[in-house]
Parts: sequence; C-alpha cells; structure tokens
Amino acid sequence: MAEPTGLRTDLDERRWARVALTVLAEPGTRAIHRLVARHGPVRVYRMALDGEIPDESARESVEARLRKIDPRRAADDAMAVAERLGARLVTPEDDEWPLSLSALERLALPGGNRRVDRETAPPLCVWVRGDWPLAEAFERSVAIVGARAATQYGEHVATNLAHGLALREWTIVSGGAFGIDAAAHRGALAAGGLTVAVLACGIERAYPAAHSAMFDRIVETGLVISEWPPGAEPYRPRFLIRNRVIAAATRGTVLVEASARSGATQTMRRAIALGRPAMVVPGPVTSAMSVGCHEMLREYESTRVVTGVAHVLEEVGTIGDLAPVARGAERSRDQLDDQAAFLLEAFPRRGVTGVDELSARAALDVRTTLRKLSLLETLGFVVRRSGGYALAPSKGRSREAPP
Amino acid sequence: MAEPTGLRTDLDERRWARVALTVLAEPGTRAIHRLVARHGPVRVYRMALDGEIPDESARESVEARLRKIDPRRAADDAMAVAERLGARLVTPEDDEWPLSLSALERLALPGGNRRVDRETAPPLCVWVRGDWPLAEAFERSVAIVGARAATQYGEHVATNLAHGLALREWTIVSGGAFGIDAAAHRGALAAGGLTVAVLACGIERAYPAAHSAMFDRIVETGLVISEWPPGAEPYRPRFLIRNRVIAAATRGTVLVEASARSGATQTMRRAIALGRPAMVVPGPVTSAMSVGCHEMLREYESTRVVTGVAHVLEEVGTIGDLAPVARGAERSRDQLDDQAAFLLEAFPRRGVTGVDELSARAALDVRTTLRKLSLLETLGFVVRRSGGYALAPSKGRSREAPP
Repeated sequence: MAEPTGLRTDLDERRWARVALTVLAEPGTRAIHRLVARHGPVRVYRMALDGEIPDESARESVEARLRKIDPRRAADDAMAVAERLGARLVTPEDDEWPLSLSALERLALPGGNRRVDRETAPPLCVWVRGDWPLAEAFERSVAIVGARAATQYGEHVATNLAHGLALREWTIVSGGAFGIDAAAHRGALAAGGLTVAVLACGIERAYPAAHSAMFDRIVETGLVISEWPPGAEPYRPRFLIRNRVIAAATRGTVLVEASARSGATQTMRRAIALGRPAMVVPGPVTSAMSVGCHEMLREYESTRVVTGVAHVLEEVGTIGDLAPVARGAERSRDQLDDQAAFLLEAFPRRGVTGVDELSARAALDVRTTLRKLSLLETLGFVVRRSGGYALAPSKGRSREAPP
Repeated sequence: MAEPTGLRTDLDERRWARVALTVLAEPGTRAIHRLVARHGPVRVYRMALDGEIPDESARESVEARLRKIDPRRAADDAMAVAERLGARLVTPEDDEWPLSLSALERLALPGGNRRVDRETAPPLCVWVRGDWPLAEAFERSVAIVGARAATQYGEHVATNLAHGLALREWTIVSGGAFGIDAAAHRGALAAGGLTVAVLACGIERAYPAAHSAMFDRIVETGLVISEWPPGAEPYRPRFLIRNRVIAAATRGTVLVEASARSGATQTMRRAIALGRPAMVVPGPVTSAMSVGCHEMLREYESTRVVTGVAHVLEEVGTIGDLAPVARGAERSRDQLDDQAAFLLEAFPRRGVTGVDELSARAALDVRTTLRKLSLLETLGFVVRRSGGYALAPSKGRSREAPP
C-alpha cells in the first residue's frame, strides 16, 4: 500500500461535527440531513447537544445516545483509530465526494417500511480505507449484490460477471458479505480490477471476520468504506441503511441470487426508486435462492433480465463499452488502416492524452483524429476518459494508484 | 374409447371444399382465408381449379399442387382415413369450432418473416381424434411449449406445471414433440387431466413415432388434432404454421425452455401478437436451453416471469382459480361454519346447480347462499360454472366424456 494519506490534521470543525453527528444519529436520518443542509454541521451539532433538533423522533434518538455516549470523545476516538489504520474521512466538502450520493436526497421508497424510509438521506461523511479517490472509484461502477447463502450457481455467475466487468474497467461495488458479495469482490480482484466493499460497521472491523484477508486485498487496489465511524458495530438494521449507498453510488445494481424478501432485494428496491438500472439474474425456478430475483422481475416493470456482461453493459455502459474486450488486440492491429495504426502508435504508454495533442503527435487533422479515435475505441484499443483518451489495458487492469 | 363419432356421412359440399382447399393451399394462407370468408369454400374451390385466385402467389402455389395432386381424390382419401381412425372433421360451421381461433384473422407479426406472415390466418378446418368437443377442450386451456432438446430441469418444470394446472381443471395444450411438449402432455395425463396435442401433420401419423403410445393415451381422455388432412407429412415449415393455433386456441402460453431463436419462441411471439398472456419460465443463465426464454423476457415487455402454477393462474385464471387445490378438503370441512357446511351438504354429487336451487336445498336466503358459496369457492370446495356451482373434484379430474 502507498503512503497512507491518513487523517488530515487540519481537520476543520465542520468535518469534526459531521463525525460527531454520525455518532449521535444513525446515518441516513432525513431530519438530521435536512438540518445540516440548511444550517451546516457545526450548528446542528450544537442543536443536538442542546436538545434543539425540531424533529421529535430524531431529537429523542439523539438524547438517548447522549445519555450513553460522550460524542466528543467518541468522535476523537474514531478519528484516532482511522489515523492508525491509514484511513481517511471524506465529506461533501472534499473533491472526492461522490456526487451520485446526492440522488439520495430525493429517495422515497414507495410502500417502504417507515423506519427505513427515515434512514434514506445521503451520508454525512464516509470513512475510506484505500488510495483511490472515492468519486473516481464510483465513476464507472456496478453494484453486484445477492444472498449470503448463495448457491454454487449464484457464486459462479457473480464471479464471472464481476470478472468480465472489471476487465472492461468497471468498478465492482458490493457489501463484503458471504455468498454473492464475496464472489463479486473476488471476481473483480481476479481480473486485477477495482472493487469497493461498502460496510455497515466501522472500517477497522472485518465483518464477517472470515473476510479479513479479502478486505486487506481489496484495500491494496480498491476501497473499503463505511459511513459509520470506526468502532461502530454491524447491527442488523445497518445493513438496510447501508444498502442505499450501494444503490446510489453506482450506475446500476445487479441482483444475482436472493431468497424471498431478502436484504439484497432491498438494495434493488432502492436502485429502482432512484431510477438506476435494476438488473436481475434469473435462475432455476426450483431454487429457493432465485425466488427473490423472480419476485423482483414480476413486481417491478423497470427491472431487466441480465444473463451476462454484455447485458449489464447495455444498461449502464456507453457505446464504447459495447465493444468486444481487447483480448487478442495485438493481432487485430494488422487490420487497422494506416492512419488508425499511426494514431495508435502515437499514444503515450500511460495516462490520458487530449485530442489536440494526439492529433499533433500523429500529424493528423483533428477531424480525422476524432474519426480514427472512435474506430480505435470501438475496436477496444483505446478508452475515452475525461480530458481525452488512454490506451486500453491489453490484459487485466494496470491502473496506477493516485499520488 | 367411446363409439367413434366418425366422419359424418352427410358431409356437405362446403365441408368437403374446405378439405380440398387445405390440400391445395398450405393452411393459414391469408389470401385463401379471405376469399373463403367472402365467397364461401365451394366457390373458392372452383376458383382454385380454374386458376382464378386473385393473389398471384397463392394462385401459383395452388397451380403447382394441382399439377401433382388430384384434390378430389386427396380429399376423399383423407376423409376415408379419418373415418377408419374414428376421427372427425370440425369446421367453422360446427358448434364445436373454437371461436378463439378467429383471433388469427387479426394476427400480424411485427418484424415477422414474410412467408410465415402469409400463413397466419385461421385454419379452414381441423381434424380431431378424441371425444371432447373441440371448443370445450380449449375453453380453459394453457399452452405449455418449449425445446425438444430440453434439460432435466425443463422437463421437471413442464411436468409439474402441467400436472398442477390439470388438477385445477385446466386443459394443457402442446405440440406433441420431444422434450417440453411431451413433459407437459404427460404431466396432464398423470393428473387425470385433459390434454390436447396439436400436430403439424396428419392425425393418423404419430410424429414423432416414439410418441405413438402417448398420442393413443391422449386420445383416450383428450384430443389429438391437426389442420392438415390425414396423409400430410410433418414438413419443417408446418411446425411454425401450426404454432399459431397453439397460441390462439389457448388463454395463454408458457415457454419453459428454449434455445436462442427456437421454434418455441415463435409460438410465444404469436401469443404476444395476439395479446394473450405470454409467460416465461426462467432458468439458469448458464443453460443454453434457457437462452431463448431470457431473450423473450428481455425483448418483450408484455412477457411475464412465471415460476409455478399460482403465477400462471394469475395470468389466465379467474378469482376461483386462485383458491388452493382441494387437497385434504375433507379434513378442513370441520372448519366450516354451520351454514357453509350445510350448503356444501346440499350440493348434488354431479353437475352444475343454480344459486336459487342451492338456496332452496340448504334453506338459506339467496344473499347468505351467495356469501357462503363464495367462501366455499375460496376454500376450494366448489367451483363456479356457467349457470351455477358444482362440487370441486376431490382428487384429479373426473369429467365424463360427452355423449
């Protein structure tokens, strides 16, 4: 792992207040989020201490916690643990805050459980282990979720999907649990891809403990994140609260296996409520582990059957993603016309290059350059990035960690 | 088998002309059907002999056949074979003609193959082996179709579905082929239910030959039918032409397994074009035999995932069908209130009884009678029929053959 970015020592009062508020109120509490949006975290923290939260239910929860917890000390402790761990706190004040999470401001679950509905607002802050900037990791990301008690079939499908998507530079997001979650993370890791585990407890805690080594591997190349401060326990309701982040942060959610009314179908319901592509892998009707998947397909018109990587890309990808993977690309270079081949040669080995620069390097006019870039992209030789184009990884993924 | 109803000896000229036209033009030819609707079969038969069919393509096909076949003799031969077989000819002039088939008059397949499109009109006549009146057999019917090269999973699901639906007095319609078709027919037979095999060749011909015994069993309690005259061979294109009858005659079609672009998906496309419930059983995404099923679910919004009998009944059934099967009904009689129990006792053993009569027999006012009937229906003790109510069969099916 690179030099830990750690916890910023100049952490300002606002960031600190966000942590303290997360200690005092369960993440996602809409009443708290609205107050913070209006008054800022510092003032809301003081309101919390003074019993001035207008929403009665939120106020009472906060007061109950205040009787047991010293929020100042809990926040300081959480930060100390994070620092030791080389983890960092990311807040909406940071550049790396994923804007996709603000979709949660409008999330209302039709027919949802009232208690859960109250816990659907965006996180106040997120704790992060791993070097990738949070927003960048989520930029091209797909959630793959499903049953803990998955079958061999489900794990096989989840691993393959994650592997194939990771090869195409998609980040695989899941919850780090047994079964489908772990199969998805592992598929991405096997492809040398980026994967993010979104936990429902403190990031210092490997939960489940059996996945401790997997989380360490994820942190080496990807991220382990949580909106709960270090020290938070994986209480059952937290998994449902956490699921909204998985659904909101990603471009779409794939449900691989689920028993009837399982937690994974709740993640799908959130993706549907957010208007994100909600994809379902069907299975044998004789399998209890596919009942939840088939229920989703029957209940929600907006769900879509997906059976493989191509179907997922059809939902979340752009034209470039529908190109075949650049396997054996070296051989098909022969088929390029001279201009395209020359342009490809002109690419720097690493990083993103602007169209003007490429045009100059290849001595082609900009129009021809754009046309040939489009061809190269379609054939899988290059990929479009913000600011220009980059060579497609010829095998697996070889992203460099950011400084 | 009961006394064969045989071929009516007073078969009038119109019926004879329909047979001769079926010999001269492939069933479903829209141009011929339109002419028959306008001018009647006798006149169109003469037009065919005189080369006066206005539609060029239909006229040329007819002329090609006239050069090889003597239609008079072929029709007579077909009728003689049918008579020996104890089969009968059913035409739109007969009471037992299924009116559901007239939906084919409006069938147009979007994006369909032009040749097949021409062959989508209703049959001119249908040959029938078996005693049940044709229209009655199709009244409460579901088509279960799928791959010939089915997997064990697919056959298991098809058998179970057919068995469960047959227990609930639904007729199972399929094509008599290997794989899913045979599994569906056998599931219905095992439940003592009614099943109809719709062939794509003459009904005297067991095709496939290995199903000869199964067809004989079907004829004992159900029907084997075809729109092709005895003697007709099972040419490949005929299966597609036949499929429209399976889709049109039934209340809905269930696709159990299908490889990509298989014939069974064509039956589904016809059901969809007819606006009939189009139901799909999903399967493992790793199975080539479910690819066609998942394709249908992805391509057509009107398709619905079904995983069992209850889901199928939700699509095709009425309120009464959603009641649990009357298994173990004898025991649960204890749970009935006095009035309901008395009303149940008052039912005649056989046949349909009107509400007034039941009210009189049970000495209950009509309003109470209706309320208790509704309860008894929900609990599966009685079934609603046109004209009143009847006792639900306590085990399997015990329909009497019509005289």
